[in-house]
Amino acid sequence: MTRILVSEVGPRDGLQSIKQVMPLEAKKAWIAAEAAAGVQEIEVGSFVPPALLPQMADTAELVAFARTLPGLNVVALVPNAKGAARAVEAGVHGMSIPFSMSETHSIRNVRKDHPAMLAEIRAVAEIASAGGVHFAVGLSTAFGCTLEGAVSEDAVVHLAEAAAEAGAQEFSLSDTTGYADPAQVRRLIRKVRGAVGDMLTSLHLHNTRGLGLANALAGLDEGITTLDASLGGLGGCPYAPGASGNLVTEDLVLMLNAMGLDTGINLEKLLEVRTILRDALPDEPLYGFTPDAGPMLDYNERIAK
Amino acid sequence: MTRILVSEVGPRDGLQSIKQVMPLEAKKAWIAAEAAAGVQEIEVGSFVPPALLPQMADTAELVAFARTLPGLNVVALVPNAKGAARAVEAGVHGMSIPFSMSETHSIRNVRKDHPAMLAEIRAVAEIASAGGVHFAVGLSTAFGCTLEGAVSEDAVVHLAEAAAEAGAQEFSLSDTTGYADPAQVRRLIRKVRGAVGDMLTSLHLHNTRGLGLANALAGLDEGITTLDASLGGLGGCPYAPGASGNLVTEDLVLMLNAMGLDTGINLEKLLEVRTILRDALPDEPLYGFTPDAGPMLDYNERIAK
Repeated sequence: MTRILVSEVGPRDGLQSIKQVMPLEAKKAWIAAEAAAGVQEIEVGSFVPPALLPQMADTAELVAFARTLPGLNVVALVPNAKGAARAVEAGVHGMSIPFSMSETHSIRNVRKDHPAMLAEIRAVAEIASAGGVHFAVGLSTAFGCTLEGAVSEDAVVHLAEAAAEAGAQEFSLSDTTGYADPAQVRRLIRKVRGAVGDMLTSLHLHNTRGLGLANALAGLDEGITTLDASLGGLGGCPYAPGASGNLVTEDLVLMLNAMGLDTGINLEKLLEVRTILRDALPDEPLYGFTPDAGPMLDYNERIAK
Repeated sequence: MTRILVSEVGPRDGLQSIKQVMPLEAKKAWIAAEAAAGVQEIEVGSFVPPALLPQMADTAELVAFARTLPGLNVVALVPNAKGAARAVEAGVHGMSIPFSMSETHSIRNVRKDHPAMLAEIRAVAEIASAGGVHFAVGLSTAFGCTLEGAVSEDAVVHLAEAAAEAGAQEFSLSDTTGYADPAQVRRLIRKVRGAVGDMLTSLHLHNTRGLGLANALAGLDEGITTLDASLGGLGGCPYAPGASGNLVTEDLVLMLNAMGLDTGINLEKLLEVRTILRDALPDEPLYGFTPDAGPMLDYNERIAK
């Protein structure tokens, strides 16, 4: 059975676009309940300046809490070296920096052009290495950008290569804006693999145009083993207009489990975690087909019949 | 460029589960507008007894109208030989009979067990052959049944073989109940192809659990060239509880066009057709991500960059 890591990014990517600040205790309950349902990696927050994103001000406390949960890989997003130092101090297992393939988006989002980002990646890599922390780079807007339009696939390959040279240990291709299609997912994975090989392990997909699961399938076909998703499809990128809608964790797990892939996640328990979100964020819409549609047929029953 | 036939089944599968009868003129406008948007095949209705489904009472008139639209392949569903005779008389290009792989569903739906259905298929094949009409068999509940649970894949293979022997010219695998997953889609296509070869061309998918487009992608990978879909995701099967939600034509076309596959369909024009449905059926929810999310990046621009 192929093992697939579903990485829950809701506490970071989901919450960062939501105005209402989720109380620390509710975040803890959410993280603990997902871990109890079998989720093995959670991005608990991001080490951005609290003044910029008050929602993420408690990330260090969440890291400390999540580290007490057995078997959970605790990761956080860092925008720069300053954030990376805070992440290491807080005790993360891993951290990732978003590196926007669209230079326009990068400048708009973090006020850094590509050379400045590569310098930042080198600095973060040194901090990660010194702290014994895993360091991944998320190649964001890799499938297109609402500001720049199409993004050159060759440019993505070259930037991934440069980031590897700067010290990245792992890569994710990120469909920040919901522009990816399955043919492009396959093409870009092959191209980027040609440059950085098996360091490309992960996809961060949005479901803006309903293609999230089809894109995930395309990634699995190309050997992707980590898929990001957000419980209830919470959130998106506040800096890319119209880029709402993370891949829904529940629907992704339904698909993977139905395909006989090993996620280690109990879907019924995962569905129960939605009540924590609903209670803490009553004004936020929750997405997903799985809660209404009822369970799938059991994979083993299906194979046996 | 690979040519993919998107077969619009909304006027049949969409409307059959809706109480409000859509006026004939609105149905004509819908069909004409889809044909003008580039849709090349439409299932305009079904030749069931009008007393059973008043919504389908005007199917013969719709066939006559649709036949006047240049380049459109006009198909209809027939439940039995009596319906087939009416379909041929009305002038369809092709007709299809649903053959439920779950015998319980077949008995509940059309009061026929498998041997009785095979006899009916033989009778319909003779009528089709005499009338010079193309004849397809839809292998319904092929991926599971809400009444029986898992459906034996070997049984599907044997029943397809028997239907081919009885005179079927073409096959569709139908996920009547929304239970299909991409791994199963691939597995079952390969198995059924082993028995009936290239006569299996088509998938009829529902989006009950959000896996519709991922399942479509799995089918494309296995060489499927026809995909059924319903504008706005209208409808489902009234006899299979919980089996709502056809694949949304707009989202399917968005995915196929984005992948550089040749559907011949203009997505912007297709989206405009939704207003016909909204005006004629104000109480029916319309589904789809495409209308809200805005257009994809252009395929050619993407490849060129």
